[in-house]
Amino acid sequence: MDQQQNMVTYSADRLLEFTARVFEHFEIPAADARLAAEVLSASDLRGIESHGVARLSAYVGLLREGEINPRPNLKILRETPSTAAIDGDNGLGLIVGPRANEIAMDKAAEVGTGWVTVNHSNHFGIAGYYPLQALKRDLIGWAMTNSSRMVAPLWGAERMLGTNPIAIAFPGEEEPPIVMDFATSAVAFGKIEMADRKEQPLPLGWAIDKQGRETTEPEAMMDGGALLPVGSDRDRGGHKGYCLSAIVDILTAVLAGANWGPFAPQFVMRDRVAPRDRRVGKGLGHFFGAMQIAGFMDPAEFKQRIDDWIRTFRATKPAAGTPGVQIPGDPERAAEADRREHGIPLVMPVVEELREVSRITGVPLD
Amino acid sequence: MDQQQNMVTYSADRLLEFTARVFEHFEIPAADARLAAEVLSASDLRGIESHGVARLSAYVGLLREGEINPRPNLKILRETPSTAAIDGDNGLGLIVGPRANEIAMDKAAEVGTGWVTVNHSNHFGIAGYYPLQALKRDLIGWAMTNSSRMVAPLWGAERMLGTNPIAIAFPGEEEPPIVMDFATSAVAFGKIEMADRKEQPLPLGWAIDKQGRETTEPEAMMDGGALLPVGSDRDRGGHKGYCLSAIVDILTAVLAGANWGPFAPQFVMRDRVAPRDRRVGKGLGHFFGAMQIAGFMDPAEFKQRIDDWIRTFRATKPAAGTPGVQIPGDPERAAEADRREHGIPLVMPVVEELREVSRITGVPLD
Repeated sequence: MDQQQNMVTYSADRLLEFTARVFEHFEIPAADARLAAEVLSASDLRGIESHGVARLSAYVGLLREGEINPRPNLKILRETPSTAAIDGDNGLGLIVGPRANEIAMDKAAEVGTGWVTVNHSNHFGIAGYYPLQALKRDLIGWAMTNSSRMVAPLWGAERMLGTNPIAIAFPGEEEPPIVMDFATSAVAFGKIEMADRKEQPLPLGWAIDKQGRETTEPEAMMDGGALLPVGSDRDRGGHKGYCLSAIVDILTAVLAGANWGPFAPQFVMRDRVAPRDRRVGKGLGHFFGAMQIAGFMDPAEFKQRIDDWIRTFRATKPAAGTPGVQIPGDPERAAEADRREHGIPLVMPVVEELREVSRITGVPLD
Repeated sequence: MDQQQNMVTYSADRLLEFTARVFEHFEIPAADARLAAEVLSASDLRGIESHGVARLSAYVGLLREGEINPRPNLKILRETPSTAAIDGDNGLGLIVGPRANEIAMDKAAEVGTGWVTVNHSNHFGIAGYYPLQALKRDLIGWAMTNSSRMVAPLWGAERMLGTNPIAIAFPGEEEPPIVMDFATSAVAFGKIEMADRKEQPLPLGWAIDKQGRETTEPEAMMDGGALLPVGSDRDRGGHKGYCLSAIVDILTAVLAGANWGPFAPQFVMRDRVAPRDRRVGKGLGHFFGAMQIAGFMDPAEFKQRIDDWIRTFRATKPAAGTPGVQIPGDPERAAEADRREHGIPLVMPVVEELREVSRITGVPLD
């Protein structure tokens, strides 16, 4: 645990163990606690710190206040051979998500594909975790989730949609898999916060103020403004980003029976002004898909084709002044290799939150 | 047929009839010819002129040269209850696409969802046509296609991907459906051509030159440059647009056994430098999906929720200086209402192409 630049580095195993024991402390069964910890750990390992143990304290807050059910019984509300609609019984998304994803994968193994909506859930970690599980079963996995409002639809001046991520992964044979996992906003809210802290202007195209005008001031976004969808403005295809975010919102929430659009519950991180009086469904919603490769093509042939695709795209003539074309998943895989070897560096505010969690639960951290 | 501003206006029925008879002239069976004409007509009606009868002359060119099979026998290469992989037998995409989409819809009716890949096909018209068919059967429909290379992956300096559109539609009860249909590039190539004709600069974010530098000069893009994916650059999420375009390419071509990425066949419009010697599959590829609403939720309830979503999003506080938030599908529906009443205006170059088609085939146009 070297301490430098206001960071403390922990091994992934150490954090995983700590997280699992913290969840167990709140009456979550051991296997589920470990599963939830693994989802958070996957995020830290892949370099997406915002969705890893940095959120543990928020989950703990919800668990302490009894706002999350530690022992959810998932209910299948509707079912066909290739679909299911699930009520997550207000469990941790980190537990409900993986179970629902299993159902999608089981259906894919049975009838070629499986598609599962989930309502009454909570934040499920990084979307990319789920298609990574599907890869282990030779399936092409999809995951989407809605989230609390942060993004304006094109030509709107208020937050109506979450950053609503989409993830999907494709296996290679000799090459590592292609893993896509991206929010449908131009940027993450964290980038606005960071610019605010550093007192730096935002690039145009990230955010609007509360009148809906593009702004370069972090505060103007934070004070009643909104993020823009990917594409930013009409000229550059902001309507496409709005469509994408809306697709995620409709599949994960309207179709799932969860709270859609502006009614998605707020995560507890900072502001917590859930418009509960205007609930239009239950909790947060997710959408999982799994497709048998063999339902379309010989899996070995597909993987060779993916290898060929990867090598061809890597060999793209690079744009002047750039590192050249990357394959989706490259940065996260590089982060994981580094962090498995050298540990996961946490900034001091997160370390302090974890120490507080340790005090509350009696689970030792350091 | 009033002639003004170098336009000739035809009724939709007139153009449909003409188009169907032209296809029949090339030995396409009457029912298929009508179907293909309907797909093109849907595009003109919805105001997407680039994909309607403006392409008829190109299809005719391919048919005359025997490069398209007028009587394709679709072969199912692989099948599970919810999936199929289809060889389109080098038919018109306008015929192969609707048939493959039917297979997806039939499977959805049977087991909840249906997912169909297609190879050995050709351009299938507007992607939005297909989910509109699914709406008629109370299904949520998806369609994607790959297309000839035009777009650089982020940080690349050459054309590697098509504009690869995604379409999906959701039915309302009292409100009209939400219909998304968008290319995954920042803009269509047509906008570059238009700026070139008008000698106007491009906004930044649309295109790069052949060194991969962002450019405002239409010629620099046309001379060996490329379009950018939606999101444009790294700061604004260009990696997300690249991911989207790659998802479409992998599902429609790598998984389907079609020519992927830079190897997708060129459409005949202008340049026709298909790298046939480097074929990695058969023809163009498509991907269709259909989902039974009842597989997830009572369809009446879903449609009411969609109505609520539409009304809530329409009521978003509008951004200063904009018309306010639209619902995806609004502009196309407005175009269709207008064009059904007042006809379809065609620019003179398209009219002249159609007159040439009329001369070649003996099918009367005017």
